[in-house]
Amino acid sequence: MTNGAQALMKTLVDAGIEVCFTNPGTSEMHFVAALDGEPKMRAVLAMFEGVATGAADGYARMADKPAATLLHLGCGLGNGLANLHNARKGKVPVVNIVGDHATYHVKYDAQLQSDIESVARNVSPGFVRTSKSTGELCQDAADAVTAARGLPGQVATLILPADVSWSEGGVPCKTPAQSPAPVADDTTVKATADAIRNGRKTAFLLGGRALREPGLIAAARIAAHNGVTLFAETFPTRIERGAGLPPVERIAYLAELATLQLSEYDNLILVDAKAPVSFFAYPDKDSYLVPDTCKVHTLATPEQDSVASLNLLADVLGARNATPVVQPAACPGRPRGKLTAEKVCKAVGHLLPENAIIVDEAITSGLMLNALTAGAPKHDLLTLTGGAIGQGLPNAVGAAVACPDRPVIALIGDGTAMYTIQALWTMARETLNITSIIFNNASYSILNVELERVGAEEAGDKAKSQLDISGPVVDFARLAQGMGVHAVRVTTAEEMAKALEYALNNPGPHLIEAVVPESLNGVKRKVLPWLLRTLPSLPRPVSKALKKKIAP
Amino acid sequence: MTNGAQALMKTLVDAGIEVCFTNPGTSEMHFVAALDGEPKMRAVLAMFEGVATGAADGYARMADKPAATLLHLGCGLGNGLANLHNARKGKVPVVNIVGDHATYHVKYDAQLQSDIESVARNVSPGFVRTSKSTGELCQDAADAVTAARGLPGQVATLILPADVSWSEGGVPCKTPAQSPAPVADDTTVKATADAIRNGRKTAFLLGGRALREPGLIAAARIAAHNGVTLFAETFPTRIERGAGLPPVERIAYLAELATLQLSEYDNLILVDAKAPVSFFAYPDKDSYLVPDTCKVHTLATPEQDSVASLNLLADVLGARNATPVVQPAACPGRPRGKLTAEKVCKAVGHLLPENAIIVDEAITSGLMLNALTAGAPKHDLLTLTGGAIGQGLPNAVGAAVACPDRPVIALIGDGTAMYTIQALWTMARETLNITSIIFNNASYSILNVELERVGAEEAGDKAKSQLDISGPVVDFARLAQGMGVHAVRVTTAEEMAKALEYALNNPGPHLIEAVVPESLNGVKRKVLPWLLRTLPSLPRPVSKALKKKIAP
Repeated sequence: MTNGAQALMKTLVDAGIEVCFTNPGTSEMHFVAALDGEPKMRAVLAMFEGVATGAADGYARMADKPAATLLHLGCGLGNGLANLHNARKGKVPVVNIVGDHATYHVKYDAQLQSDIESVARNVSPGFVRTSKSTGELCQDAADAVTAARGLPGQVATLILPADVSWSEGGVPCKTPAQSPAPVADDTTVKATADAIRNGRKTAFLLGGRALREPGLIAAARIAAHNGVTLFAETFPTRIERGAGLPPVERIAYLAELATLQLSEYDNLILVDAKAPVSFFAYPDKDSYLVPDTCKVHTLATPEQDSVASLNLLADVLGARNATPVVQPAACPGRPRGKLTAEKVCKAVGHLLPENAIIVDEAITSGLMLNALTAGAPKHDLLTLTGGAIGQGLPNAVGAAVACPDRPVIALIGDGTAMYTIQALWTMARETLNITSIIFNNASYSILNVELERVGAEEAGDKAKSQLDISGPVVDFARLAQGMGVHAVRVTTAEEMAKALEYALNNPGPHLIEAVVPESLNGVKRKVLPWLLRTLPSLPRPVSKALKKKIAP
Repeated sequence: MTNGAQALMKTLVDAGIEVCFTNPGTSEMHFVAALDGEPKMRAVLAMFEGVATGAADGYARMADKPAATLLHLGCGLGNGLANLHNARKGKVPVVNIVGDHATYHVKYDAQLQSDIESVARNVSPGFVRTSKSTGELCQDAADAVTAARGLPGQVATLILPADVSWSEGGVPCKTPAQSPAPVADDTTVKATADAIRNGRKTAFLLGGRALREPGLIAAARIAAHNGVTLFAETFPTRIERGAGLPPVERIAYLAELATLQLSEYDNLILVDAKAPVSFFAYPDKDSYLVPDTCKVHTLATPEQDSVASLNLLADVLGARNATPVVQPAACPGRPRGKLTAEKVCKAVGHLLPENAIIVDEAITSGLMLNALTAGAPKHDLLTLTGGAIGQGLPNAVGAAVACPDRPVIALIGDGTAMYTIQALWTMARETLNITSIIFNNASYSILNVELERVGAEEAGDKAKSQLDISGPVVDFARLAQGMGVHAVRVTTAEEMAKALEYALNNPGPHLIEAVVPESLNGVKRKVLPWLLRTLPSLPRPVSKALKKKIAP
């Protein structure tokens, strides 16, 4: 006899889902019991649901297929919501298995009863289903997998009542092979080619899977042949970069900068990306960042095969054999002296090994990361796609599970690290090859900037204390040690480089607590002068335009 | 000029809301800036939203009025959802202020855009409102406070778009005084009195505010006069207990036990409580725990004044002047030898000072807590009302903020502590007089029981590893020290008692990591024999019935 959970497990494994990030409770015990019957399913336990969901996100970004999560009712899903939001915004496939009370138990409104579907809709608007019977369960699961891994990838939530899980009569079910994504049609390709040929200045805005090597090469051929600029979305799900790959400039987080970046163009061609909007709204500032004078075209939507569409466009433009401009190898020197956030990034750029995965949730402390790793050996970069902080450490867990042979380096702000600090425990439990670098500046530094940007300059001491996490200063090395992760605290650039070298030479989880001053210290009163500091990481024309604009 | 945030702040303070538990982001910056204009509003920062919401819950349980939370969009609310669920189930008033994007920004679907109202409905089905304009904001806030603090208390969620917050034209608004709750009508009181007089055996099931001293005294007078038994709901929001107060037996968590507790009664009278149902569903077991032979009556619903209703009933029964049975003072001796969870509870019972607040989220390790503190000096006990673990440490934060003159002792399981471990940082930041005792048994021990109870005995090593958090064992003392909380790790009963003594004599946050074996170690294969171990904490008749039932 096969119960629902056992059949579900088989269905998932048959569909290629081989990892489940778990934080189970009583209602999931039959699913847990079924794990032993499926050697191909790896269960990775987290001590908080936000770790499980963020790990599933990081896994899928690197494995290009979904993992499952196992969550305990509406509250477990709630705890995992923020990182599922990041997955949704990053178009990342995730299959949530959310346990629920037995169907007949719901009416009693027991302690943990809540409206799971409502919560799930926030992150998986495209697929939320409560399985009604053991007989239907596996088809429901196959539908969830199909929904999750189609283009664009999405979060699919399957709610699994305990009795549907434990009842006999489960019948495993095949998940149909993924149908190939459509390519941009000829009319669109031709119109795009015309825009490129006729435009004064044209830029691509690349997002989603167009930021992997094949998409970048295709776009870079067109760029070389037709003088098109390459932009990437602000927070890529996964971007392949480094020496030998075509460089691409990310649209800036700050609306003020993004507007400048786009100001010269009369055509913006979207490839699996949306037209840039401001991250937040600000009084008297525009939300939509594309200038009126710039026409927006769409070559490929997130539903389409962006790489094939770019190649088709290259053919039409005669650019298929053009030589793309690629990033020359160039590493910064070894940093010296008093530690700053910039020197931490410099150490990473100096030491980055071939084929690393960088997870960037360093917020203000990571301002210089892009510039300082631009010519480093080829690597993947994962970023904060949905803006819900607490993504970095869990994402690193998932990336390391997906790619056990690649070193993972997670750069995380101190404030943001605390949301899902429990990820360190899973890193230790699974002996994952992750080096977490925590920038400890004892501040929600970005909020000091934002406080001013929203025009709330009248802020007094009480307000400022809400952005200050220096009383007490968190000792991240101790937190890591408390969860079984080797950790050191560094205060000089020399120590930083040495610690990173050690970590990279000795696989297994490490944490480096980098004690740094705020990157924006002393320049909070005015945003534009502060932007000056970011100029070295920007391409020449933008720097020039910006310098002109803010010159006294 | 007054902007929306400033007027909102004034409206909240005028309504008696004096504490806001915060974890703000950019969209809340004007609310943060407005803090300095209101000296009466205390802002308590948390490094994770679940801490803020759990603290608001604990605060309101002790202050009998709501605190506000300040949360950042749908993801911040998601992170706070589990503890808001606990507040909802505990009928605890909370006013959520959830920042949102500016109204005009929503259509751009920026990174942090999500459907906040859907998420909010899970925990505040009675009041979710997105404020539409600065002019309407303060009336919206007054409505939210009114909804939250009525009977039953509830979670009210006010969604605050950034432009509604920052625009000028805010007009503070008075919140009407709370209208008195209705009392049970004469017909109901008479019918209840008749049931008591005519029944063979009758029990009260007391919940909500009926578990405070006035309600307990009223019920105990009737118990003494009419031979009625007093039960309390399984997980009270707040129960006053100890020497000099009427003792009341809580309905057991385990359905098997609860059924036995209720088996002798032919009348069960609900007072601000619902008829007992099983926490979870189990194969072939009933969800509804009241025997068919027992008739359920309702004296007072959660919407009604339960104490006044009990007093009215006492009048009708002529019990108003009866002498209630109260708990005699009796403390256990000082524990000695190798540490066990029971000895930790014994140390608490031995040393508990007058007027303490105990927060119990010790799960299996706390089995003996009730018995060992029954005759301790008067204290309040707060429990896990909604079953969403991670409530204890944040609840302690809120209780300590509400009652700065009372010592707070939080007893927390290791698994559960990790969900909201960031609460320790807020304890240090605010120098709260809390002693957190973490039972470190390196296991999700309750799930070992549940795995068997749901009939999943075939569980293999992979399944069992999902309940095992021993690799690595978390070092809670280190975690606490990393967040600025004084901490010790104890392995003997003598060390435990000494550490608790020290903590109680030296106000300020402390953490005691009690290394204990699993309470249920070696007795997992059968649930009923395990129950035997819980017998000393049960009243005589239940023990007898149970012993008879499980005798070999």
